[in-house]
Amino acid sequence: LSAARPFLAVDWGTTNRRVYRIEDGRAVHQQRDERGVATISAQDFEAEVAAIRTANGDLPMLLAGMVGSDIGWRKVRYVDAPASLADLANAVERIDSRTAIIPGVSVLDGSHADVMRGEEVQLLGAAAARLVPEDALLCQPGTHCKWARLRNGAIASFTTAMTGELFALLSSKGLIAKQLTGEVLVGASFLDGVAEGSRRDLPASLFSVRSRALLGLLDDRDAASYASGMLIGADVVARLEHGAIVHVLADPKLGGFYCAAIEALGGSARLVESEAAFVAGISKVWELAK
Amino acid sequence: LSAARPFLAVDWGTTNRRVYRIEDGRAVHQQRDERGVATISAQDFEAEVAAIRTANGDLPMLLAGMVGSDIGWRKVRYVDAPASLADLANAVERIDSRTAIIPGVSVLDGSHADVMRGEEVQLLGAAAARLVPEDALLCQPGTHCKWARLRNGAIASFTTAMTGELFALLSSKGLIAKQLTGEVLVGASFLDGVAEGSRRDLPASLFSVRSRALLGLLDDRDAASYASGMLIGADVVARLEHGAIVHVLADPKLGGFYCAAIEALGGSARLVESEAAFVAGISKVWELAK
Repeated sequence: LSAARPFLAVDWGTTNRRVYRIEDGRAVHQQRDERGVATISAQDFEAEVAAIRTANGDLPMLLAGMVGSDIGWRKVRYVDAPASLADLANAVERIDSRTAIIPGVSVLDGSHADVMRGEEVQLLGAAAARLVPEDALLCQPGTHCKWARLRNGAIASFTTAMTGELFALLSSKGLIAKQLTGEVLVGASFLDGVAEGSRRDLPASLFSVRSRALLGLLDDRDAASYASGMLIGADVVARLEHGAIVHVLADPKLGGFYCAAIEALGGSARLVESEAAFVAGISKVWELAK
Repeated sequence: LSAARPFLAVDWGTTNRRVYRIEDGRAVHQQRDERGVATISAQDFEAEVAAIRTANGDLPMLLAGMVGSDIGWRKVRYVDAPASLADLANAVERIDSRTAIIPGVSVLDGSHADVMRGEEVQLLGAAAARLVPEDALLCQPGTHCKWARLRNGAIASFTTAMTGELFALLSSKGLIAKQLTGEVLVGASFLDGVAEGSRRDLPASLFSVRSRALLGLLDDRDAASYASGMLIGADVVARLEHGAIVHVLADPKLGGFYCAAIEALGGSARLVESEAAFVAGISKVWELAK
């Protein structure tokens, strides 16, 4: 079977890169580094790809993520939602006979417009690997948190929230930055933040990080937990239907923050191993794109 | 009458300072500069105050704003809401026989905790000068936008929203910063932003600045107007009861943005001349604090 032929799968984002050597649908070798596309000049991608083959095997290669954007190697189209792994496979952009980039996914539904590039492989792969049901609500936390509704194993619609970026911005400068240096922990302050964030009034809630400290109601040691809970709570409450199950694709630490907020706001959370989902998704695209 | 005796009123914020020489309740002279408290070391305040008297008249002085905070000259208490001009006058902090600082105002109502320092003079002064009714909803836009509910001419409760600071942070770095360099204008993009912001889902709405541009739905020239409308819309919708009249204390440009958002979201906006409100408020405190 052609699907059994080994290939290199590259998850190439803005800041990080992961290379997997995949044989028979299993990752038999991997390399991680911080050579995200933002660190690489346009004319250097061919040499980078050659170096990946030198280090990981001289094999056909399938790439996903921001490598297919205007800050990457080549700008690849978006497939409109609903989008399945077969739709992605049908629209791969072939760079040469053994190198191709997977398209992103876009949604345009009334006034809601959104895009993803890279996350689609993991989200769809989770269903392909039976890590989540074919009809499910998935959440992939991060700098730009993706929420996707799967129907029949395809991405029916999705929303991106810049939750992680907001926390990073607020921590870097401005009124409350000095308060946000502590470690984020799931505890009373985090859950207070989730409750505050669920009021869906972030411009005012964020100021409360400062005012609660001035009035002696919040210790600066707890402020990062409170603010993180607030931002995650605001993100979750906007997308959680009461009692819904949310499948969270993330490492246990960041995923744990989302799971705690989801449970606090009346949902049920299931943590899903995201790397296995990526490997399953890209293996399926590889099989279908022959 | 002692109230007729001339005095110097100083509105001394974090980044700006305004000095008024007030005679018979009227500002007969003023000085503006950017010597906010953030630019002045703790030990230099006495010399700064002496310099103000040299430049503006050797008179008694009443100070308001962040000069009374832990980043100012001396940390002065907060008066709990509800707070009137008489309450402020009763709690002025006397530095010496002819120099005093007006306290801030705090509110603690269930989980809602908030503080202001300086804005109280202008908000209460607007009612004292009959620029607004004694029972009214006031909005003072800015880096940290203050919304106050007046009852019987006193501040009954209030909320701070860091709307202006969020716009500044998002413009300074991160995913959408490069898009936010255009001028903010009240037009179709601004009003699209107000509608998006009124969905009360800022983490996702902010990402739409990027995704709408990628999908050709938003020109980068219009992105600052769209994002500004979104942030102001999110601020307004959280505090506007349908059909309510909001009295906006601001210059016509910034005030105009808020007025447009308030009207778009079903309220009625009235622009109020904020400097006259400050002069009226501090004159009344001066009269009552004798």
